[in-house]
Amino acid sequence: MNPTIKKMTEHVSVRDFTKQKITAEQKQALTAAAQSGSTSEFVQAFSIIEITDQTLRNELADITISSPHVKKADTFYVFVADLNRQASILKAHNQDLDSLKNMESLIVSIVDTTIAAQNMAIAAESMDLGICYIGSLRNNIKRVAELLKLPELTLPIFGMTIGVPAVKNQPKPRLPKVNQVATNSYDNQKFTDLSDYDAVVHDYYAQRKTNASDTDWSKKNLAIFKQIRRPEVTSFLKEQGFTL
Amino acid sequence: MNPTIKKMTEHVSVRDFTKQKITAEQKQALTAAAQSGSTSEFVQAFSIIEITDQTLRNELADITISSPHVKKADTFYVFVADLNRQASILKAHNQDLDSLKNMESLIVSIVDTTIAAQNMAIAAESMDLGICYIGSLRNNIKRVAELLKLPELTLPIFGMTIGVPAVKNQPKPRLPKVNQVATNSYDNQKFTDLSDYDAVVHDYYAQRKTNASDTDWSKKNLAIFKQIRRPEVTSFLKEQGFTL
Repeated sequence: MNPTIKKMTEHVSVRDFTKQKITAEQKQALTAAAQSGSTSEFVQAFSIIEITDQTLRNELADITISSPHVKKADTFYVFVADLNRQASILKAHNQDLDSLKNMESLIVSIVDTTIAAQNMAIAAESMDLGICYIGSLRNNIKRVAELLKLPELTLPIFGMTIGVPAVKNQPKPRLPKVNQVATNSYDNQKFTDLSDYDAVVHDYYAQRKTNASDTDWSKKNLAIFKQIRRPEVTSFLKEQGFTL
Repeated sequence: MNPTIKKMTEHVSVRDFTKQKITAEQKQALTAAAQSGSTSEFVQAFSIIEITDQTLRNELADITISSPHVKKADTFYVFVADLNRQASILKAHNQDLDSLKNMESLIVSIVDTTIAAQNMAIAAESMDLGICYIGSLRNNIKRVAELLKLPELTLPIFGMTIGVPAVKNQPKPRLPKVNQVATNSYDNQKFTDLSDYDAVVHDYYAQRKTNASDTDWSKKNLAIFKQIRRPEVTSFLKEQGFTL
């Protein structure tokens, strides 16, 4: 296992950073990495907004509820799935925008954006920085779009906090390969036989140094998905011009 | 720029591979990297299916139309956005599945899947392998799902071919930073002022060694989005149980 892959397998989300600054050169490397990833048919359907204004940071952190570290992390980027460039090109040629508004184009933009973000994450970790994806921006996705002045056919998917780690947890045990990787067809029986993994996750949460708890993977998922989450994402997308 | 980031900035899609085999150890590293990425609230909403059966490979390659190398690449994985594990947990506790069926959960699963895929891509390239995302599986997404026996609340997003590169193109020039990265708010004017970039992309396509052509970035996007693409992705998602 080479150093790049070893680092990937040691990934943990970091929410507790020192006050050390990220340099301009490091930021340049982060955005260059993000811009270099694969992109569907070269459409590059994403934008990145760095949030340096503290008032704006605070408002975004309040939207997340769960991520007060958004206020204090050295660097915070918001990743935007973005078909607005394509819209501007089509409009300039008097074409309608129907092709950008459907589910296929939405998927393309979400995938392009996430590839860029994960490149940034790996680049950050390669420089011994820590990162945390901030999906809870979607707690009030409409307000995030207003704050960032997002045009039609764009969608703020998540943010990413980056800084020098003060504390790192141990990596969480991932699904066993037998529960997640198969050959030639989906393996429903093996993928949903989660009892061994529940025992592993139970031990992880029972034994971890901070926030130890009595739970397992199935219990956690049950708690997360027992109620409907962020139902207004759909209406937001329609307001942004997607017909889906 | 450290070696990991340097490699990222040199990324190109590879469609022409030698006959050299990927080792079992390399494959193990690829799936371990994919499974180690960030995941929204630890839900790990993806599965990976390696396609080793040549008949199945050929059928999938035929669906892509544009990617005959799917037949011959040493290794081919299909990435599946997957909320079926969560469905099995909710069913076992007599909960309805509404929370898994909405746009928010779909986005979570697409993001988790893409993070995993991009980790695999970076891991592959760190071992001097080449990769190509195969989004054109969505040309007939329903048939892909049938071939792979995908259950409800799953979605095959893309494949990835991996092998030892025989030929590598030069990296395509990405959007200038001024067209894609902003501070504190979306910059509609700068993001859609694409004339400089069109000139760069024009030169790239005019001068490249294979498949030189007279085009630019705006022209390419216009050609891609002039017609509605893959409109049946929406009806497929509804058949898979998503209400959106």
